[in-house]
Amino acid sequence: MTTFREDTIAAIATPIGEGGISVVRLSGSKAIEIADRAFRGRNSLASVATHTAHFGRFVNSHGDLVDDVVSTVFKQPHSYTGEDVVEVSCHGGMYLTKIILAELLDHGARMAEPGEFTKRAFLNGRIDLSQAEAVADLIKARTEAAQITSIQQLEGRLSSEIRILRERLINLVSLIELELDFVEEGLEFVTRSRITDEISVVEDRINSMIDSYGVGKIYREGVKVVLCGRPNVGKSSIFNMLLNSNRAIVTNIPGTTRDTIEESININGVIFTLNDTAGIRESDDTIENEGVLRTKAEIETADILLFIIDLSEGYTKTDSSIIENLAGVRERKLMIIENKCDLINGSYNEMISSGLRTREAIIVSAKTGFGLETLREKLSSLSANGSGLSDKSVIVTNIRHVNSLRDAHMNLEKAKLSLQGGCTGEFVALDLRATCNSLGEIIGEVTSDDILTNIFSKFCIGK
Amino acid sequence: MTTFREDTIAAIATPIGEGGISVVRLSGSKAIEIADRAFRGRNSLASVATHTAHFGRFVNSHGDLVDDVVSTVFKQPHSYTGEDVVEVSCHGGMYLTKIILAELLDHGARMAEPGEFTKRAFLNGRIDLSQAEAVADLIKARTEAAQITSIQQLEGRLSSEIRILRERLINLVSLIELELDFVEEGLEFVTRSRITDEISVVEDRINSMIDSYGVGKIYREGVKVVLCGRPNVGKSSIFNMLLNSNRAIVTNIPGTTRDTIEESININGVIFTLNDTAGIRESDDTIENEGVLRTKAEIETADILLFIIDLSEGYTKTDSSIIENLAGVRERKLMIIENKCDLINGSYNEMISSGLRTREAIIVSAKTGFGLETLREKLSSLSANGSGLSDKSVIVTNIRHVNSLRDAHMNLEKAKLSLQGGCTGEFVALDLRATCNSLGEIIGEVTSDDILTNIFSKFCIGK
Repeated sequence: MTTFREDTIAAIATPIGEGGISVVRLSGSKAIEIADRAFRGRNSLASVATHTAHFGRFVNSHGDLVDDVVSTVFKQPHSYTGEDVVEVSCHGGMYLTKIILAELLDHGARMAEPGEFTKRAFLNGRIDLSQAEAVADLIKARTEAAQITSIQQLEGRLSSEIRILRERLINLVSLIELELDFVEEGLEFVTRSRITDEISVVEDRINSMIDSYGVGKIYREGVKVVLCGRPNVGKSSIFNMLLNSNRAIVTNIPGTTRDTIEESININGVIFTLNDTAGIRESDDTIENEGVLRTKAEIETADILLFIIDLSEGYTKTDSSIIENLAGVRERKLMIIENKCDLINGSYNEMISSGLRTREAIIVSAKTGFGLETLREKLSSLSANGSGLSDKSVIVTNIRHVNSLRDAHMNLEKAKLSLQGGCTGEFVALDLRATCNSLGEIIGEVTSDDILTNIFSKFCIGK
Repeated sequence: MTTFREDTIAAIATPIGEGGISVVRLSGSKAIEIADRAFRGRNSLASVATHTAHFGRFVNSHGDLVDDVVSTVFKQPHSYTGEDVVEVSCHGGMYLTKIILAELLDHGARMAEPGEFTKRAFLNGRIDLSQAEAVADLIKARTEAAQITSIQQLEGRLSSEIRILRERLINLVSLIELELDFVEEGLEFVTRSRITDEISVVEDRINSMIDSYGVGKIYREGVKVVLCGRPNVGKSSIFNMLLNSNRAIVTNIPGTTRDTIEESININGVIFTLNDTAGIRESDDTIENEGVLRTKAEIETADILLFIIDLSEGYTKTDSSIIENLAGVRERKLMIIENKCDLINGSYNEMISSGLRTREAIIVSAKTGFGLETLREKLSSLSANGSGLSDKSVIVTNIRHVNSLRDAHMNLEKAKLSLQGGCTGEFVALDLRATCNSLGEIIGEVTSDDILTNIFSKFCIGK
């Protein structure tokens, strides 16, 4: 491990913006000493008990008052990071908070890297790696489902399942390896059928965790919905209808939307990120062409694609050619929305028979609101490819975890093949050890600096 | 006073957004009891000492874990509000923080109104009214000058100056009124010349505070700069040049900027809010015409107006007619910027002689950056109508304070007239009492519910 934990780090721990309170956090062996250089309270922070809060003046290096603050001291090891921590709680202005941070840096603290407080908590054994990752997920949670899966992970639900499976495998490996020591005596410490049974049990539980990822990903990241289609078919109107607001500028001029606009809605506890896009057409307008390029980029990364048709014009050649050009769309979840149903009177059957209608379309009118509920229900059902949150099961929400689980699964399969192929215990043990390592990566028992850097760099600063 | 302080209030005290920590704050007689309904720590918060922090689990009404939190208890009267206060510090996610607030509201807290914590601090005598206002200013401060004037006000510098002046006047009034009791004996407790002298001294100090407001307002609110002119003269390019970024989309297509774009820069410690606007012209484009209407609204409220001319086209008729139409511009600070100087070669003198050049224009090239420093210096000098921050003088930054000071000044003038007109002491005393009341409004010794409501409604929630 590197020596980075020898210094004391500081960062603004609260969100960036204006509020009643902001907190600047220090962690490290000199946290209290550094805070004392700027803090003027009744007592020095060095002399106070752990877990106590102290009102005082925060002064700059000229001794001028910067703000009235409350400093709270947490002495090691009973702090978030396991080190000495001081939290300086000041009036929540951005400028002010930055000045306070700057003074603490001047007094010898180093600016914390993203996630460095949590990284120290992990390195000091306060939490394991999957719990550290849960902290970041908890902060980003935007729905009850995301909050519950994150707090369960932070509580250690995933970790404890992983630990149980690792322990079973390690016990099994120990017996197999013990047998190897006594191979000449021909002693059998564990029957081949017991090994197979154990592997099956572990495999089932790994599979069920891998399966939970479909739901888990949606809970954690939400569903990306992209609205696309020709200009002026009413994409922005449908966008606004779903949002129940006037977020996008709507006019009857084709090509009004230039930038891609993104907003989120919550349908039955799942976050749908809606992307309104510029209409697809050939245009001489430089700005608009830039918009169409952005539209194509959005389509590439969509989970669900809403393709909007203007019913009053029917399915045009341009509509067909756009659909043809959307390579790969069939792999995604394409929904066709027939808009402006308020403009047609009785002639709808005719429209259907003339169109390219190969799938069920949803008929709406962004103007009257007709079809909104059907659209919301369809979105919800398209995204819900799991049975929701059960009270007991572990839900895997993190791509890193599911990748490690898949590695574990692959190594288990190898172990099974080795067994079936009549290989010696040595090979089976090797595969099972590899499985243990894959599982160990999830909770950070087996890890590398690269993995850590990658995980914690995605955190916000101050966490 | 109303009975509103009988209940316990709660709000998110940290800025809205994602961060490492968010704080939900409770204040009132039941703060500790309410927090204890959701907090599961080693001890109940009711049993702990004031100014101590406690790690624990925050659970919902079903007993499910919501988050791991740290609760800090401040018992009355030694808290921000002077009441029992609990600060629940949780992981800084928006959804999570809202859930924690919602649980506390369910347990009997009431959602705090904007500024209600600080209002309680004022009503409980922890701070005076001008100090309460300083809290809001401190949070909004974006420059060192704003931070220093706010913290000086929070420290009580303005309050103490006001108190000194009030005390002098009250002493004077007491003597005059005492004299009235002994009017038949013909006793004189204070000579007319002493009264005149005292009034002069107070008047001078009130005047100097009123004078400081010009600087104070700039420190507190910054300077609003609006860039305007014909389409395609380079407004957005100059905007970007001042910002040193590509914030506004720049093309060579006239009418690219539709929405008004606003960004801030700091020149010599003063915040300039730059507003890039849509070019002014007659247009058939619905969207663009809406933009021009917004431009006109921005111009109305500008402190400094930058009128951009395209040097390569010279001063056109449209330029002249725009300037003529900008009614009231002459009252503001109009700067003419001659852009695109890179496009003209030697023919500049000619351009000048043919133009409407009635004032000094600043010649720039947004393309090459020529003239940027001159422009920044000119902006800085136009805004600096004071001598900067002196160490000792009180700077008034608040329109409410300066209005009360003006009232005080007016009443002092009346007192002087009464004296000069040979009125009896009764009249002089009346005017001086009115002066005291005006000064008392600043620190809240004389106030009304309306004034309080008005002041605190401008605070953020949670402060």
